[in-house]
Amino acid sequence: MMKLTIVKVGGAVLEDPDSFAEFLHRFHSIEGYKLLVHGGGRTATQIAGQLGIETKMSDGRRITDRAMLEVVTMVYGGLINKNCVAFLQSVGCNALGITGADLDIIRAEKRCVTDIDFGWVGDITRVNGETLQKLLLQDIVPVIAPLPHDGAGNLLNTNADTIASAIASALSASFKVTLIYCFEKDGVLSDPNDNNSVIPLLNRELYNKYKSENIIHSGMIPKLDNSFKALESGVFEVWITNQKMDRNIPGTKLTR
Amino acid sequence: MMKLTIVKVGGAVLEDPDSFAEFLHRFHSIEGYKLLVHGGGRTATQIAGQLGIETKMSDGRRITDRAMLEVVTMVYGGLINKNCVAFLQSVGCNALGITGADLDIIRAEKRCVTDIDFGWVGDITRVNGETLQKLLLQDIVPVIAPLPHDGAGNLLNTNADTIASAIASALSASFKVTLIYCFEKDGVLSDPNDNNSVIPLLNRELYNKYKSENIIHSGMIPKLDNSFKALESGVFEVWITNQKMDRNIPGTKLTR
Repeated sequence: MMKLTIVKVGGAVLEDPDSFAEFLHRFHSIEGYKLLVHGGGRTATQIAGQLGIETKMSDGRRITDRAMLEVVTMVYGGLINKNCVAFLQSVGCNALGITGADLDIIRAEKRCVTDIDFGWVGDITRVNGETLQKLLLQDIVPVIAPLPHDGAGNLLNTNADTIASAIASALSASFKVTLIYCFEKDGVLSDPNDNNSVIPLLNRELYNKYKSENIIHSGMIPKLDNSFKALESGVFEVWITNQKMDRNIPGTKLTR
Repeated sequence: MMKLTIVKVGGAVLEDPDSFAEFLHRFHSIEGYKLLVHGGGRTATQIAGQLGIETKMSDGRRITDRAMLEVVTMVYGGLINKNCVAFLQSVGCNALGITGADLDIIRAEKRCVTDIDFGWVGDITRVNGETLQKLLLQDIVPVIAPLPHDGAGNLLNTNADTIASAIASALSASFKVTLIYCFEKDGVLSDPNDNNSVIPLLNRELYNKYKSENIIHSGMIPKLDNSFKALESGVFEVWITNQKMDRNIPGTKLTR
């Protein structure tokens, strides 16, 4: 089976040109088929602020009214995505920057209003694995902004971790998929204040145990839920590691 | 020879959702291979203003410092391009929104500083016609934002009329290309204040005559220069018409 590496990157690394360049160099050095999913929430919050638009979050998710949807379309779909593509092209990586609307890659439906109206936030309904595979087999490196569409002309805002997991799952039928979540820490930590406390191996059972003991909590939970979902739908392996993708600090490996 | 229609759209139509939707419906109804190039200068000026960034023009061209480059990357590459793609996908048109950096489609070099420093403005050095052709033959409809790259990691800002002309020229070896410039007026006017004064047919000789008589001037000149350049490099036909692409008001046809 063909090997495919899917990397999700977000957070502070996107804001610092040097770290971002270093990260992209490392991404470029990954052998075989590869695909990048990026976030950009911090930059979106910053640009929104400059435009006088207040950022409202609920449970770590961005409430996306019409004005905020315009901001994330500009920041994720334009600023971050296209700078990433221009950089990758400069090192000889044939990147193609897309949202979920492009080539109808990712469909979602607008989240129902319950206690909270998340606005233009989407829950993924379908990933077009066939088209993604076609791109990969043409040696194109897709760079994906977390903006699916609803098929009725609207872009939607979806968490980039979830996008990466859904793409990994959709492509696991055709590829042996390694999914790597890159973030600020070296891995999943048993003590959030101690970067030396990386949990090297985590399965669903251990995850549930750590969750019940409140060792793993808040922001890590959606990331890990997405990871286990991916593993259970056929993804070969999932890693949670730092943005250096440093082989000496391999991070946390998740297994079924 | 396969028929290809390249449409360039810009100006006020991009700012009004209803007119834009109407335009995109008409674009979608074009038979055969097609490709869209869009501008978005007015929206860029507006967003820049909201961000406290002053828009400076010289000879109708935008001076693009680092901050303005970020704005046009957000507005052309993100906001306009991706909304356009989401709309086209909703009517069943398999759109792919790209800049010149994506798939290394358009290279440019940063314009030399003379009397004026245009900043991150690019002059096109190469259009990757082969890759564009590959996309078209897969029934993909490219939607192109006027942002080439320099191959060294930088996006550049280039006039969308020039981008459309360069793409039309590059593809004229493989396709019978019709290039349509859509704008506010019904065509090239002999009296700018009278929309009924459309010049139905214009060749280089007549163009030079009208130019010397100051009947054609200012903003029309780069558009027409780009048009004749395209015709002289093998493009089959060039039209300058309104955004309704109204068959009853066909606009100005240019011939060699």
